[in-house]
Amino acid sequence: MNFRVEINVMTKKEILDPQGKAVKLGLTNVGIDAIKDVRIGKHIILELEATDENEANQKAEISCKKLLANLIMEDYHYTISKI
Amino acid sequence: MNFRVEINVMTKKEILDPQGKAVKLGLTNVGIDAIKDVRIGKHIILELEATDENEANQKAEISCKKLLANLIMEDYHYTISKI
Repeated sequence: MNFRVEINVMTKKEILDPQGKAVKLGLTNVGIDAIKDVRIGKHIILELEATDENEANQKAEISCKKLLANLIMEDYHYTISKI
Repeated sequence: MNFRVEINVMTKKEILDPQGKAVKLGLTNVGIDAIKDVRIGKHIILELEATDENEANQKAEISCKKLLANLIMEDYHYTISKI
């Protein structure tokens, strides 16, 4: 079965996000006010083959831990759907 | 009222995603097989003030079009929730 895993990797709350700060300023400069905070991370879409959702979940977890997220500075969340 | 807008900006399907290709190879190298495709984009979280969801929606739409997404190469999707 094929699964689609959608992963969001974000810098942890307590860590400064300079890219987000720059975009916040950029939004003000193009006339969009009342922006209180901007944070920018990665959105990763994996399409993978697995026998069941459990295996897909395991693969997603290992992928995040081993390669996609830096656990010292980043948090990750993902959702799995069958395709 | 405060709203949280979660935006995903992804390269369009028909455009090559070299970062995704590199990560796909990386996943194979750390022992995760059966990965069929990887695409990488941006996940942007905006926290903004608006009088209602409609205004929040408008601000999100303008932010994407004017600054966050390059409409020639990228697609965007967002969800809005009250915080």
